[in-house]
Amino acid sequence: RVPVGPLSLLLALSLLSPWGSAGGSCPPRCVCASNLLSCSQANLSTVPVPLPRFTAVLDLSHNNVTRLRADWAPARLPHLHALLLSHNGLAFVSTEAFTHVPRLRHLDLSSNRLRTLDENLFSDLGELEVLLLYNNEITTVDRTAFENLGRLRKLYLGQNRIARFPLELLREGTRLPQLALLDLSANRLRAVPAGELQALPAWLRDRLYLHNNPLACDCLLFQLLDRGRRRHLSAVEDFQDELRCFLPGASALTKILDLAGKQPLNCSKAREAVLEAHLGDTVTLGCDSRWQGVRSRHWVTPGGERVLGDGGNGSVVLLANGSLQLRALRPEDGGTYSCWVAGPLLNETLYVELLVHNFTLHGPHDTLNTAYTTLVGCILSVVLVLI
Amino acid sequence: RVPVGPLSLLLALSLLSPWGSAGGSCPPRCVCASNLLSCSQANLSTVPVPLPRFTAVLDLSHNNVTRLRADWAPARLPHLHALLLSHNGLAFVSTEAFTHVPRLRHLDLSSNRLRTLDENLFSDLGELEVLLLYNNEITTVDRTAFENLGRLRKLYLGQNRIARFPLELLREGTRLPQLALLDLSANRLRAVPAGELQALPAWLRDRLYLHNNPLACDCLLFQLLDRGRRRHLSAVEDFQDELRCFLPGASALTKILDLAGKQPLNCSKAREAVLEAHLGDTVTLGCDSRWQGVRSRHWVTPGGERVLGDGGNGSVVLLANGSLQLRALRPEDGGTYSCWVAGPLLNETLYVELLVHNFTLHGPHDTLNTAYTTLVGCILSVVLVLI
Repeated sequence: RVPVGPLSLLLALSLLSPWGSAGGSCPPRCVCASNLLSCSQANLSTVPVPLPRFTAVLDLSHNNVTRLRADWAPARLPHLHALLLSHNGLAFVSTEAFTHVPRLRHLDLSSNRLRTLDENLFSDLGELEVLLLYNNEITTVDRTAFENLGRLRKLYLGQNRIARFPLELLREGTRLPQLALLDLSANRLRAVPAGELQALPAWLRDRLYLHNNPLACDCLLFQLLDRGRRRHLSAVEDFQDELRCFLPGASALTKILDLAGKQPLNCSKAREAVLEAHLGDTVTLGCDSRWQGVRSRHWVTPGGERVLGDGGNGSVVLLANGSLQLRALRPEDGGTYSCWVAGPLLNETLYVELLVHNFTLHGPHDTLNTAYTTLVGCILSVVLVLI
Repeated sequence: RVPVGPLSLLLALSLLSPWGSAGGSCPPRCVCASNLLSCSQANLSTVPVPLPRFTAVLDLSHNNVTRLRADWAPARLPHLHALLLSHNGLAFVSTEAFTHVPRLRHLDLSSNRLRTLDENLFSDLGELEVLLLYNNEITTVDRTAFENLGRLRKLYLGQNRIARFPLELLREGTRLPQLALLDLSANRLRAVPAGELQALPAWLRDRLYLHNNPLACDCLLFQLLDRGRRRHLSAVEDFQDELRCFLPGASALTKILDLAGKQPLNCSKAREAVLEAHLGDTVTLGCDSRWQGVRSRHWVTPGGERVLGDGGNGSVVLLANGSLQLRALRPEDGGTYSCWVAGPLLNETLYVELLVHNFTLHGPHDTLNTAYTTLVGCILSVVLVLI
């Protein structure tokens, strides 16, 4: 959707030309500091044009820009990485508004009057990392609104009117592979499907904010949050009084974390495996699923980091059978590891609590093992080189 | 300066306790979206207390917080990574204001009334990456204000009244090792010492904004900027009309880039080496200095990245004699490499323009060389393992 016709090119050039040599001029009512333009609270009802081509940060917060049309940036702004438009009474954003700002990493549209997130609204923003949409009037989120946001890490949608969020978009390996924080607090969510919650990557589920929603009580939701509280996740621990739900037939809200053993659901707490080991040990954490035909497995460390296939720093290795091997254990390796399993029928997560005792039991076997592995690898290389 | 006495601990605990369980409450007049607190334009004259302990982003812009005292955050905010205080008429910031927010990465104090940056003002912020101080009334910058900012990448000081900036703080390997953008535009700088400019790391000098200052004309400054224009650096190219200086005895400003051959200075353009090579070649870029006793050398690639001692991705290797070796040249390896040399008498930068012709000349010698190196390394490992 980048304009390539002769007319648009001419338009782009004619708008660019004043900056070709003069470049440094600062739009009226703005404060400029090199590549940063601050036009905050400047009584603007439209985005100033032309904007310097080198603009990296554009702050338009606290103005009256109620419509962000496709042509707000007639020429490409190839360096713009932050666009701040909060507190503008913004009610309309063209689906082509971001065609000319492909390098945007931070987009703040919070505290406006947006009602819908249309089809492919943000699809041009392949480098976007943080998207702030909280405190709007959003009721509808199109399933394709977040298409192509391959680098999005944080999505704030709190303080809106969302009754249904397409959580299925967030399944592992799908549209938002990097998403690590999703704020859906203070919306109108009634149901969070158990299967979809199970299917979320662990690193996202740990930072999913669901408080202040009129949720229906559900034992899986309880187990998930109960576990989060035990792991001191902020999304649970800091908002436990606001994590409430409606019991079947009840009209008042109940704290979700108080559901254990309560009728009519009678939820039970989730269980997890515990493994004990000693300093310097090599341990293997299994990730056996009850289900056949597992398609993929992912491990997340106690620090919340995902273990990648390449084995990271060498002391943590992902084995071919999906188990996680930890070598030369240190005290700081202890904690809860989670393994997310994707299968044809159901996705599930298994938790392994690893306790590392602060003394050694074994001799230097592991070191020797490593040495032998290196030796074999080297001989192989030598043979290959000679060939 | 973290309070550890029993009284401060008691104080901290008593202020923490309301959040121990209730946690989720949002301060009055603020909008909260999970860990993000927006209290922008809320008519606040002080920072709201207590702030939730989990706060990650705190936006207090457009208020009347004129003083930021040591106790604005009585309890530690261990997760706060962005603090926005622009447009507050802020005239005083305690030197202990940031004791309790050690994880801050982004600090916005722009568009306020700050006059001085006191001793060690930001020294508690070891993780700070971006510091916005533009559009204040700063005249004095203490030499220790930026002490310990080991991760600072961007420092915006434009639109102030700074007549002298201690550029010597920015010498390679000193106080701000990561700094890659310094905005000093629209200040009152009269002189930028040639030696200090030469001593700046190349990756910082390429993004040093000096326009709109009443500078004294100087041939070294001309050469530096002229080279920047040829390399299409934004700090030069986009602000060439605003890069002006006073010629000796003159009362009107002259464009710095027009100084070539102009009397009385008669500046000449800088020269640089050119090296031609072919696809797949291995080339060595020398970095010989005219000066004896070179203390250290650093290379910066055409993309502006610093070459680290560990050799990066294997195709770029820093040799022991300070030369840069590029292996298996690709078309995208072409461009201007700069080598910064630190010596006992003078620091200087040498530029090497590398042209990569889009065809091969040589056979597979280099590949074979690599294979031999691997072989030797392996045999050595085998011997060591056997020992």
